[in-house]
Amino acid sequence: PISITRIRDRHAQIAGIGALAGGGVSRLALSDEDKQARDVLQQWMKELNLDISQDDLGNMYGLLPGRDPSLDPIVLGSHLDSVPNGGTFDGVLGVLAGLEVIQSIKESGKMPERPLLLVNFTNEEGARFPVPMISSGVLAETYSTQKMMTLTDENHITVQNELERLVLQGDETNRLQQAHAFLELHIEQGPVLEDERRQIGLVKGIQGLSWHEFTIWGDADHAGPSPMASRADAGIMAMKAMLALHEWVSSLEDQTTITFGRIKTEPFTINVIPGKTVFSADIRHPDKAVLDQRIDEMLKMVEQTMEQESGNWEETSLSYMPPVTFHEPFLQELESICREQNFSYYSMFSGAGHDAMHISKFIPTVMLFVPSIGGKSHHPAELSRWEDIGQAVQLMHEWTTGHCY
Amino acid sequence: PISITRIRDRHAQIAGIGALAGGGVSRLALSDEDKQARDVLQQWMKELNLDISQDDLGNMYGLLPGRDPSLDPIVLGSHLDSVPNGGTFDGVLGVLAGLEVIQSIKESGKMPERPLLLVNFTNEEGARFPVPMISSGVLAETYSTQKMMTLTDENHITVQNELERLVLQGDETNRLQQAHAFLELHIEQGPVLEDERRQIGLVKGIQGLSWHEFTIWGDADHAGPSPMASRADAGIMAMKAMLALHEWVSSLEDQTTITFGRIKTEPFTINVIPGKTVFSADIRHPDKAVLDQRIDEMLKMVEQTMEQESGNWEETSLSYMPPVTFHEPFLQELESICREQNFSYYSMFSGAGHDAMHISKFIPTVMLFVPSIGGKSHHPAELSRWEDIGQAVQLMHEWTTGHCY
Ligand SMILES: NC(=O)NCCC(=O)O
Ligand SMILES: NC(=O)NCCC(=O)O
Repeated sequence: PISITRIRDRHAQIAGIGALAGGGVSRLALSDEDKQARDVLQQWMKELNLDISQDDLGNMYGLLPGRDPSLDPIVLGSHLDSVPNGGTFDGVLGVLAGLEVIQSIKESGKMPERPLLLVNFTNEEGARFPVPMISSGVLAETYSTQKMMTLTDENHITVQNELERLVLQGDETNRLQQAHAFLELHIEQGPVLEDERRQIGLVKGIQGLSWHEFTIWGDADHAGPSPMASRADAGIMAMKAMLALHEWVSSLEDQTTITFGRIKTEPFTINVIPGKTVFSADIRHPDKAVLDQRIDEMLKMVEQTMEQESGNWEETSLSYMPPVTFHEPFLQELESICREQNFSYYSMFSGAGHDAMHISKFIPTVMLFVPSIGGKSHHPAELSRWEDIGQAVQLMHEWTTGHCY
Repeated sequence: PISITRIRDRHAQIAGIGALAGGGVSRLALSDEDKQARDVLQQWMKELNLDISQDDLGNMYGLLPGRDPSLDPIVLGSHLDSVPNGGTFDGVLGVLAGLEVIQSIKESGKMPERPLLLVNFTNEEGARFPVPMISSGVLAETYSTQKMMTLTDENHITVQNELERLVLQGDETNRLQQAHAFLELHIEQGPVLEDERRQIGLVKGIQGLSWHEFTIWGDADHAGPSPMASRADAGIMAMKAMLALHEWVSSLEDQTTITFGRIKTEPFTINVIPGKTVFSADIRHPDKAVLDQRIDEMLKMVEQTMEQESGNWEETSLSYMPPVTFHEPFLQELESICREQNFSYYSMFSGAGHDAMHISKFIPTVMLFVPSIGGKSHHPAELSRWEDIGQAVQLMHEWTTGHCY
């Protein structure tokens, strides 16, 4: 049977890697901390005698063979990387839940018909290398391998550099291919389950998300002798554009969100009027048509502000993922189990992107959510209740056994 | 006599150190580039047989002895450090002008009565170590030596660390003390001389300047599942505060300026709502009472915005320099020479801070300005006319010989 104590102990061990003094973790993709966490996972997979492999993207796999090798596997897992100053549950929980389900099936002594495959995806967050879910994106042929390998972090280090440095690169032939199912368990990272007072989220799909980088050019000058009226301050211009966008999206009162996570002036010097300002925009909506319209409107609005301000600007699209919906038959099965077991569940869309988004393109996919206390995530205070987690892993276990025997 | 060709050649040589592909230079205080420029200056001083010394702050001195060693020296000079992406004239010109005047007097074969002292001040810009004119500030006892030595750059490297690494630290007893006069020639860095169509600025004084760092705290969260209405976005809060300040100062239509040179969100991640934003404010006015009032108003305005936004904030004063006025008798002498020689001059205040600001506290001080084309400075396009420069150095030479024989 499922051991919640084992998940809890393992969670504590991973949470200690990249742990911050004030709580939370920084375990950026392909950092030394990520490597440490991978080593621990590898050790657990070894102890379970799983067939371990890695692909050329650094994705980790652990296979529990089935009695019928001709059957496609059931894939379980998520990611071990975090954002800077992130929480300890995001991603990790899905990997540990998958491991626990596989371990309990293995320990039952009854070999499954169907193989079970645990996966840990590289660079889900996109925090260090600024495209999220890049390795599942390559598996789904949404992105080219080239795009993934040449992404750079702030210090101009590429994904390829780090895969080599940390000796994480396996063979391309090991890449996840066709499978019977992919189930990713994750924390909700939003307020819905808490608001609805439910313990399990059955995830029908994920809203679309689009990442952009804007560069605004004014004209640098000395902060002292330059009269206010004659300035072309790229910081002021960028702020006007961002506040206009923020007010517009807030006034829509629909599900659109816009976030400027990165804002930085250049040359970043106290007595220099910014000649340049770079900012990111993360824009989301559950409906593709609306999302696409919002992106257009965003670009027009920046253009308008920059015309008024007589500055130059440029926009680069960093990543674009339209909304996806998950495998309906699996959702119905999960709902049936919830009803039978009297689990309190809620059918919902995800506000956050997940590897399941890409994987759903070539494997029938579904996700389970566990409530996030206060809806908080990407924050050291991120927290979920072990009671809720236990129930979600139980559901995952029942559904998996239903498919592998 | 003054050789403008020599100044021009030397300028080209220094401009090559830290030169940027797109024009301009980055020669931050106590960087390898600063060290290279110092080595070149040292070599020139050696060739002139000046008595070379350094003090504990890394200030460089080159003394041409006078016939009467009991007489206090005339001090000439400025600084060799630059802002990132700065111009090639800022600071450098004053050092080269001083060197040229001393060299031409030396080469005249007629030993001066009074010693002449060339100086290059450490960290004038405050671009890397975020307090400007720190070493002249220590000489003037505006700042403690401790404050200067422990200032850190963005990589947590201190001034002391760099002085040691670059072997730039001399003896405290070598510090500039009492002197007959200090004359600093500099580019104007503003539009006044160009607007007035004059070739020389006689600088009556410098406006006050005050540097502040604001930290704004909201609450980080995930950019995807967090509804717009429930966010506490520290980036949005900071932008509202800055734009309110900008609009207020612009609407004053007096001489107040405010500049937000550094703005950066944290954790600086595309899919994380900023939990923190740090920005600098550089605020200036020629009148101390007005400046002090503006600083108060600025703090009240940030407080007001942050109350509306329900975020927390903190302000740190990085440096404060009230306005100064220069030595009136020297200004009159310089004006007389201009009249005699038919130089076109203009008496004006400086919008930028200079080491002369601190030095004027203990040495009778005056400054000369050369026009900046388009008023531009702290920008690669910073430029001055060699014709204007020649005239200003000529004036400096005449005034200096008037005082040293
Ligand atoms: N779950 C999660 O934090 N994914 C990263 C991609 C996103 O920003 O939604
Ligand atoms: N001249 C100059 O750029 N000085 C730096 C101090 C200031 O910001 O005014």
